[in-house]
Amino acid sequence: MSEAASTLEGWYALHDFRSINWSAWRSADEEARAVALDDLQEFLQEWTSVEEAGKGSSAVYTIIGQKADFVMMHLRESLEDLNALENAFNKTTFARFTTKAYSYVSVVELSNYLAGKDADPMQNPEIVARLKPILPKRQYICFYPMNKKRELSDNWYMLSMDERKAMMRSHGLIGRSYAGKVKQIITGSVGFDDWEWGVTLFADDALQFKKLVYEMRFDEVSARYGEFGSFYVGSQLNPESFESMLKV
Amino acid sequence: MSEAASTLEGWYALHDFRSINWSAWRSADEEARAVALDDLQEFLQEWTSVEEAGKGSSAVYTIIGQKADFVMMHLRESLEDLNALENAFNKTTFARFTTKAYSYVSVVELSNYLAGKDADPMQNPEIVARLKPILPKRQYICFYPMNKKRELSDNWYMLSMDERKAMMRSHGLIGRSYAGKVKQIITGSVGFDDWEWGVTLFADDALQFKKLVYEMRFDEVSARYGEFGSFYVGSQLNPESFESMLKV
Amino acid sequence: MSEAASTLEGWYALHDFRSINWSAWRSADEEARAVALDDLQEFLQEWTSVEEAGKGSSAVYTIIGQKADFVMMHLRESLEDLNALENAFNKTTFARFTTKAYSYVSVVELSNYLAGKDADPMQNPEIVARLKPILPKRQYICFYPMNKKRELSDNWYMLSMDERKAMMRSHGLIGRSYAGKVKQIITGSVGFDDWEWGVTLFADDALQFKKLVYEMRFDEVSARYGEFGSFYVGSQLNPESFESMLKV
Amino acid sequence: MSEAASTLEGWYALHDFRSINWSAWRSADEEARAVALDDLQEFLQEWTSVEEAGKGSSAVYTIIGQKADFVMMHLRESLEDLNALENAFNKTTFARFTTKAYSYVSVVELSNYLAGKDADPMQNPEIVARLKPILPKRQYICFYPMNKKRELSDNWYMLSMDERKAMMRSHGLIGRSYAGKVKQIITGSVGFDDWEWGVTLFADDALQFKKLVYEMRFDEVSARYGEFGSFYVGSQLNPESFESMLKV
Amino acid sequence: MSEAASTLEGWYALHDFRSINWSAWRSADEEARAVALDDLQEFLQEWTSVEEAGKGSSAVYTIIGQKADFVMMHLRESLEDLNALENAFNKTTFARFTTKAYSYVSVVELSNYLAGKDADPMQNPEIVARLKPILPKRQYICFYPMNKKRELSDNWYMLSMDERKAMMRSHGLIGRSYAGKVKQIITGSVGFDDWEWGVTLFADDALQFKKLVYEMRFDEVSARYGEFGSFYVGSQLNPESFESMLKV
Repeated sequence: MSEAASTLEGWYALHDFRSINWSAWRSADEEARAVALDDLQEFLQEWTSVEEAGKGSSAVYTIIGQKADFVMMHLRESLEDLNALENAFNKTTFARFTTKAYSYVSVVELSNYLAGKDADPMQNPEIVARLKPILPKRQYICFYPMNKKRELSDNWYMLSMDERKAMMRSHGLIGRSYAGKVKQIITGSVGFDDWEWGVTLFADDALQFKKLVYEMRFDEVSARYGEFGSFYVGSQLNPESFESMLKV
Repeated sequence: MSEAASTLEGWYALHDFRSINWSAWRSADEEARAVALDDLQEFLQEWTSVEEAGKGSSAVYTIIGQKADFVMMHLRESLEDLNALENAFNKTTFARFTTKAYSYVSVVELSNYLAGKDADPMQNPEIVARLKPILPKRQYICFYPMNKKRELSDNWYMLSMDERKAMMRSHGLIGRSYAGKVKQIITGSVGFDDWEWGVTLFADDALQFKKLVYEMRFDEVSARYGEFGSFYVGSQLNPESFESMLKV
Repeated sequence: MSEAASTLEGWYALHDFRSINWSAWRSADEEARAVALDDLQEFLQEWTSVEEAGKGSSAVYTIIGQKADFVMMHLRESLEDLNALENAFNKTTFARFTTKAYSYVSVVELSNYLAGKDADPMQNPEIVARLKPILPKRQYICFYPMNKKRELSDNWYMLSMDERKAMMRSHGLIGRSYAGKVKQIITGSVGFDDWEWGVTLFADDALQFKKLVYEMRFDEVSARYGEFGSFYVGSQLNPESFESMLKV
Repeated sequence: MSEAASTLEGWYALHDFRSINWSAWRSADEEARAVALDDLQEFLQEWTSVEEAGKGSSAVYTIIGQKADFVMMHLRESLEDLNALENAFNKTTFARFTTKAYSYVSVVELSNYLAGKDADPMQNPEIVARLKPILPKRQYICFYPMNKKRELSDNWYMLSMDERKAMMRSHGLIGRSYAGKVKQIITGSVGFDDWEWGVTLFADDALQFKKLVYEMRFDEVSARYGEFGSFYVGSQLNPESFESMLKV
Repeated sequence: MSEAASTLEGWYALHDFRSINWSAWRSADEEARAVALDDLQEFLQEWTSVEEAGKGSSAVYTIIGQKADFVMMHLRESLEDLNALENAFNKTTFARFTTKAYSYVSVVELSNYLAGKDADPMQNPEIVARLKPILPKRQYICFYPMNKKRELSDNWYMLSMDERKAMMRSHGLIGRSYAGKVKQIITGSVGFDDWEWGVTLFADDALQFKKLVYEMRFDEVSARYGEFGSFYVGSQLNPESFESMLKV
């Protein structure tokens, strides 16, 4: 048996992807749309107070292409908080004009491949800030889930801790070379959803997502051991731009 | 031919995942919703008497994310009992506001990799209690189906009984180290559903699911031989909280 | 090129899985339901005369879980007969309350791995009875489709006839040890449907499905060469129990 | 780099699989059904003149099982002709009672693994007849798409021309041994649809499909290098039998 | 770690595949269809001014078969531009008669496997023209997404730059031999969509797609390392032919 890396967990995460039923939206009368938009705005507003209270962080982005029309990303203190958000959205009158597209349940995670064994990492404010991050206000988002492969001779989980540590170090160096350009939040989803991790990237230039992920693909961790799900890319919405996107 | 582990079976299990059609629910008038809720409460109530009669056990949990809105997990004496439950739910007026999301048919199972050959294990009250368990009242549930792999050199079913026994022992040790934190019910589904086993975990701290499953993934049984389906995670509902979740 | 086993074929088979649209069924008025039930009963009745005329055999079972609500299994003399049955069902008023769930097209098959080269096997009444079987009246059914694997070094179709014969003999011994407990009908579907074979098992104790399939999985034929589709399990319906299942 | 076999192409092919919305069909009134049937008959009639003009060939078959209710197979001179046929069907009033089930776009193909390098094969009337075939009037059809595998050591496209030629010769011998019993049309779909080839078989005895495909599966070309999609089997319809199939 | 090829990126690309809801379209009254067609024409018209302004290029093609009825391919300066186009289409009255079929998000890409290290390639007008191409007016389009494989010994990303360069050179030679016959636009989608690249081919003879892709499949880059998604083939539409395709 190979030694598991120890992990630290912070806020739980829900990526909630939705599509707009444009046909129903266009057919609705002015008043019904106005009520729905008010409901949506109120729902978005509540995120601010949660963030100010240090109890979580939320953001909303459009999604390009047909996979979804927008994603609401939520970080909260518990799975119940996430479920409440999901249900609160479903109960808005705006939700009547949307359909479910995809979702992902995970928890913000730091693995200690790269760290020493600290006294108590939760006393380290920098670590706490990374486990309970305020979502950055960048123009673009990129989300994808991933696994480490377990296929015959390419089996991540059969490697020794030292082998994994060395590869993760090289992987981390690529990530660090994009510091400033791409902000990355890793969430663990073993036991919570269908892949082992979710990766959420934020940038002001969407090309940096492509450059980062492509460069990493040549790194042994990804080349031999990475398995990737669907990729979602989108650009930031705020209450105003969301409303103007919905203007018909 | 490699020797099959002998197994003991207890109650049959149905995991019945459903989604709520929120749009229909919101559009229904007060009275229709009240009738539906009464029907739901009556359906939930009947579980209690079954459990008191020692003829089964049931529980209901929300599911986080879009895969489903809630799961009803039923243990009963026969497949007909499970089918009757399924149909009884389908006939409630509440079911009109739900859609099918996923289901899993299996039977509580103990494999004797770890046990000696008892005289008659069904005379052992501890074993009977594990085969016909009352579902624990924990805050969180985690369900996933799994196979043992049969891929070229990584073929569980071509290993000798001794090799499998040794690996299962190591696997069991991890499970035991979570005793108190995570309660686990293994159900066998060979011949009943699309995967070979269902795993249902219960805990009061959802993070323990992640830690347990992740640690096990480095164990050779999972690392080389485990194949996993979708993961579902949720938190416990009771008649009151179910009703308040449905308040619109 | 490896030698193909010769096969004998009998009746064509259609497994026709359907789900009930419970919402439509509950919403229908008494009279509409009564008409639909009469139509269903008439449809079921016609099977009896076909079976008495020695021209086929049919049975209907509930299916446990959400994959389907019931399966009609038909054996008939030609594909046209099966298609006519399918369409006749679709034209009943009862069918309006059902949706398609899954189907499987195949033909009852005996492969001669285990047999000597008979003079004319179709003159052997025992063989004819196995090729044109009356479906047994057992309490439970289990259906699954399967392939023999063709994956690099685990390629069934590249083995010699002798290797395959030896493995099939061992496989047959397991099957025979369940004689009386499990009745098995093998149907071939190469050229007819998406898998190479369909396996239909009948038993009065559903646990025997699990024990048989699990024991076989350790046999080299299944362990190295078996690829399995979805498993469906159900319990027998007759005209009365079908009607009571539909009572709302 | 391995040498590609040269190919000759003839008529483009569209396999257009449709399901009948039986519920809508039964609910329609007599007149609506009569109009739809007239529309259907007119659509079918036009195929005759195209075939007489030597500009293509079409046929319609029922499909057994739930994958589809019927398939229209069209051979025409251009992709635009096929698209026009597809749209013409979609515009009939009959199409309102059908749903899309599956389709396949390809082109009749002869590969020259088996042939010498002719002067100009398109001057050879036998070859032209095979590239622009009139669909045979056989009782049964079988369709499936397929690939040649590219998996590690089982990679068809890394073999030398001589190796491929030798295997295709053996493969062809099996096909020829079914001459008279099974008529086969190979269509290439590289660049047109999701598999590399479509295989359409015609026979007066459906069992011959099973025997041919099963025998071929032991041939190295199929055993090691064949990858198969879904199989569709059906029986021939003409304007009269199509109408009687639709009688409710 | 293996060295990543550097890439140049130009316009962002959206392939937007849609199906027509023919049933709704036929049922609409003359006036509703006229309004929808006006809306469609206006939407198509706007593409011209964008192309004239050098800010992008768009084209529309029918798709043969049931996967979709037409594709709109857009090249634009930003992801927001693409999203705006998508939403603008969704807001037309014509969109009410369509359903989403598939989409692909990528960016026009040149990889420098074949190039020397230029001073500043963006100063090279030929390179800029390839990164910001006006879509060619050819009769046929072919689109498919693809990956480079990472499977045990067939792992593109573990090869050295020199090995990859040599193989890409051979690959490029095939492409060049189709110059004039097939125009090819490669778009990168790492970080943007589910495959690593999209390939869009344009030709006046659809057979050239088949010949090019088939010939390339024998080239080691494709034979060992190519993984392909769905293939879509279609023929060009203009405002007039689009309208006549919709005539009912």
